[in-house]
Amino acid sequence: MASVEIDRLVRLLARLPGLGQRSAQRVALALLKRRDTVMLPLADALTACAERVRPCEICGNLDTTEPCGICRDPEREAGLLCVVAELEDLWALERAMVFKGRYHVLGGTLKAMDGIGPEELGVDRLLRRVEEQQIAEVILALGATVDGQTTSHYLAERLQPLGSTVTRLGRGVPVGGELTYLDEGTLDAALRARQRVA
Amino acid sequence: MASVEIDRLVRLLARLPGLGQRSAQRVALALLKRRDTVMLPLADALTACAERVRPCEICGNLDTTEPCGICRDPEREAGLLCVVAELEDLWALERAMVFKGRYHVLGGTLKAMDGIGPEELGVDRLLRRVEEQQIAEVILALGATVDGQTTSHYLAERLQPLGSTVTRLGRGVPVGGELTYLDEGTLDAALRARQRVA
Repeated sequence: MASVEIDRLVRLLARLPGLGQRSAQRVALALLKRRDTVMLPLADALTACAERVRPCEICGNLDTTEPCGICRDPEREAGLLCVVAELEDLWALERAMVFKGRYHVLGGTLKAMDGIGPEELGVDRLLRRVEEQQIAEVILALGATVDGQTTSHYLAERLQPLGSTVTRLGRGVPVGGELTYLDEGTLDAALRARQRVA
Repeated sequence: MASVEIDRLVRLLARLPGLGQRSAQRVALALLKRRDTVMLPLADALTACAERVRPCEICGNLDTTEPCGICRDPEREAGLLCVVAELEDLWALERAMVFKGRYHVLGGTLKAMDGIGPEELGVDRLLRRVEEQQIAEVILALGATVDGQTTSHYLAERLQPLGSTVTRLGRGVPVGGELTYLDEGTLDAALRARQRVA
């Protein structure tokens, strides 16, 4: 490529998740071909987000308002708190439109190897929130992975003395899942969580 | 998602090639987490490209200068012209650093069904260029697809009266390619293009 500007654009695009050198070039080209309809609006949207979006001090969600839209929404059940590891998990639940309480974004899971302990995740802040806001139920919506489960167990132990109900997401066959493709762990969990239908 | 700004960013990202709704969200999140190192520099790079990058009037390459860096480069062989369908093809050849002539970007291939004829591709402009610049050899570097080959044949016919040598890229086993995975067409072409080694 001849131009320093295009080179720089491709290099920055290649740093985005899921984009390598080749796909960054493809994206750059698509942008250059759609200057007014995508390229300039995207530059504008990036600047607007960078200037105005901030993490909510209550829950860790990203929004342009403080507190965030979810924390301010009076329709949300105040006594129901869903703890997630990352913001993308909050987005996944919001996309599914299945949860009407509020959130708490930990910003990760416990990982002793990487030096991520309770302090890094702000566990004390979570406990204070649960106590102050008199949360009736804390749902630990962490992944069914080793790190997710370690974190889940640790949080359950710390939350227990506070008197709130503490739950975790159910385990079993994912909707649309075929048994033949499921791992033993999921089949085991599904069998234990079997429900009477007749 | 709660914020109008983030929603808009995700919608724009989802319009880029290779990105769907989910991956656009993932990219948006990665950007929001890297505000100063990626998000703002990317906004800046997009604006700079949108403002300064233009298609070269001689060859169709994109650059901030007119003529483009390749057309202005005195080290490039002036009598050797490589015709490509799209800018990404020019980029692919430049990446490979195997060609030292100049380019002509058609901007597509002939497609009667989509109403893309010789006029849309500016074939007359190409013929004028070949004549005026006294090009010794025109390399038709179009894809080995039906559209690419149709275009190649058409251009060869139109170029022939001008007296330049007209060639197309060689066919055969791609480097690193295993015979068992190649289609019949490639194997046929490779057999026809066989070369004596002893």
